[in-house]
Amino acid sequence: MTSDSPVTRVLANRYSPGGAPSLDNFKVVSAPAPTKDSLKENQVLVRSLYLSVDPYQRGRLTGATNNYIPCYELNKPITTDGVAIVEASTSADISEGDIVSSRIASWETKSVVDVATLRKLPTGTIENARDFVTVFGMPSFTAFVGLTTVGKPKAGETILVSSASGAVGQIVVQLAKACGLRVVGVAGSEDKVEFVKSIGADAAFNYKTCGVFTEAIKQAAPEGIDIYFDNVGGEFLDAALTNINFGARIISCGMISQYNVKSADETYGLKNTFNILTKAAIFQGVRVSRYYGTPTEDEFMAEVGKLYKEGKLQYRIDETTGLENAPQAVLNLYDGKNFGKSVVKV
Amino acid sequence: MTSDSPVTRVLANRYSPGGAPSLDNFKVVSAPAPTKDSLKENQVLVRSLYLSVDPYQRGRLTGATNNYIPCYELNKPITTDGVAIVEASTSADISEGDIVSSRIASWETKSVVDVATLRKLPTGTIENARDFVTVFGMPSFTAFVGLTTVGKPKAGETILVSSASGAVGQIVVQLAKACGLRVVGVAGSEDKVEFVKSIGADAAFNYKTCGVFTEAIKQAAPEGIDIYFDNVGGEFLDAALTNINFGARIISCGMISQYNVKSADETYGLKNTFNILTKAAIFQGVRVSRYYGTPTEDEFMAEVGKLYKEGKLQYRIDETTGLENAPQAVLNLYDGKNFGKSVVKV
Repeated sequence: MTSDSPVTRVLANRYSPGGAPSLDNFKVVSAPAPTKDSLKENQVLVRSLYLSVDPYQRGRLTGATNNYIPCYELNKPITTDGVAIVEASTSADISEGDIVSSRIASWETKSVVDVATLRKLPTGTIENARDFVTVFGMPSFTAFVGLTTVGKPKAGETILVSSASGAVGQIVVQLAKACGLRVVGVAGSEDKVEFVKSIGADAAFNYKTCGVFTEAIKQAAPEGIDIYFDNVGGEFLDAALTNINFGARIISCGMISQYNVKSADETYGLKNTFNILTKAAIFQGVRVSRYYGTPTEDEFMAEVGKLYKEGKLQYRIDETTGLENAPQAVLNLYDGKNFGKSVVKV
Repeated sequence: MTSDSPVTRVLANRYSPGGAPSLDNFKVVSAPAPTKDSLKENQVLVRSLYLSVDPYQRGRLTGATNNYIPCYELNKPITTDGVAIVEASTSADISEGDIVSSRIASWETKSVVDVATLRKLPTGTIENARDFVTVFGMPSFTAFVGLTTVGKPKAGETILVSSASGAVGQIVVQLAKACGLRVVGVAGSEDKVEFVKSIGADAAFNYKTCGVFTEAIKQAAPEGIDIYFDNVGGEFLDAALTNINFGARIISCGMISQYNVKSADETYGLKNTFNILTKAAIFQGVRVSRYYGTPTEDEFMAEVGKLYKEGKLQYRIDETTGLENAPQAVLNLYDGKNFGKSVVKV
């Protein structure tokens, strides 16, 4: 691709308030490439390397005005966490060839961006650039924040992890093992269950074939659940609540089972909240963005970085090649077609 | 009543797993009075003065084996918190005339009890004996524990309190005001609403006549809810969840709206838990028994005692006279016929 080849952009095409999103929510277009001559002060021209694909994107395509993150603007590029290489710069801080990350990376093959939105990555090589949207990415940091600030694990306790092979779950499984917990993982296929065991889970089961959730959890954790790291919400969360021990901590990190309901009427109604009361349990939502730029982020980089460098942390990645295929990668999240952290290699 | 008059006892007569309890769950009987000659070592003969009547008693009459407190034993006396006067003692620590409290006081006009289950009250006069099942009783301590350990109030925040004229709620309202919070109370009659305002609530409404809960809450607290002290669960809790601010704390103290459901199918399904996730809120159950005998209990006695002695704390009591009327006092809790903390004057 030369500097004047057209760029590919993925735009938000329309909102769908309920139900599953479709390819029609996105529009893949071709546009003239931005040039370095168009740079204003403190801007850079970047070429995208990797873009993150995350479940929260569903909410940004609903058109809802009460979202916790604003909806994508129609006819503007989708944004997520991303990593890019700098091709031209008008900034003194960032130079051509630097690798940069952004929490609002545009889904474009090339973009002009303000340096204020960028972070120059300490290890500026293309080879490990992907780490910053995978093992050190937002979902991984979310796992760390949820486990440490809400879960407060104590060796010997039992943790239940749903979506245990997913972007967040696989980190939770491994960090929990490192803390000396008994880990029970839940995933949506036999392959995923095997993977979850291979990264250290003491027990794991396939929620699609396990039968009654409450019984499956009880069988996998007869000693009861001290921590439940919830990525799914809905019926499985309700079943987990029937198995919690006194003083349990429930980390509410995601509710993927509920993101595609067609209307509020179809939202699953949680029946077992009385157990939260009687067990003096905590059910707490995690918003990782609160911890950006705090000492918790440094702790995360240190602890996860150490495990990773020592080869004690695996991170399974589901890589899609080509920005034009990114919309399908988003859709795959909601029926569990991805296996591991979903990223697009641009 | 002379020492050989027969005593009145209220026994658990039968369990009813679902639906509203009835007088038939209790049996009022007459029995020969225990005498001081029957005392073994370290026992006392006590005459009951006041017995607490509390919503959690419903659960103890269900026959369920998975309760957080065991069910009442059939054909044995009901127990709750109570205050009594000692008529005879074989203990060196407790003497005739002492006022004692118990967390497992039998619903009997006179009882023989082990001194190990008793606490000698520091102010041993009949006149203020009632305080120990009312303003200094278990529900009042629950209010303190919930507000301080989960609510963590900050001046200027807004708290919503359900059952705000009840045993727990009226203390929450007044402690919250003392912390500089804006207080919104909810109760089930116009009289109760007026009372809630009279003890300091900035706004209050009648949930039976307010229309759509979500809208009523929004109107009373347009700035949103930072703390919700929940005594009711169910639909009102769900509505409160739609009005919480970022970082809200929800104290789950009771779910009286759900105690008399006929079956699990009828249990209200909570739909708005996604707000807990997106608002990084905390929903936490309070079990006051964890704090018995801890420094938190001393803090409670000091803080609430100070407000009470200074005349800055009101505590409305719904007193029933005569142990034989205690079963009806229990039933009255579930349709809101009580107004204030329910106690039986024996």
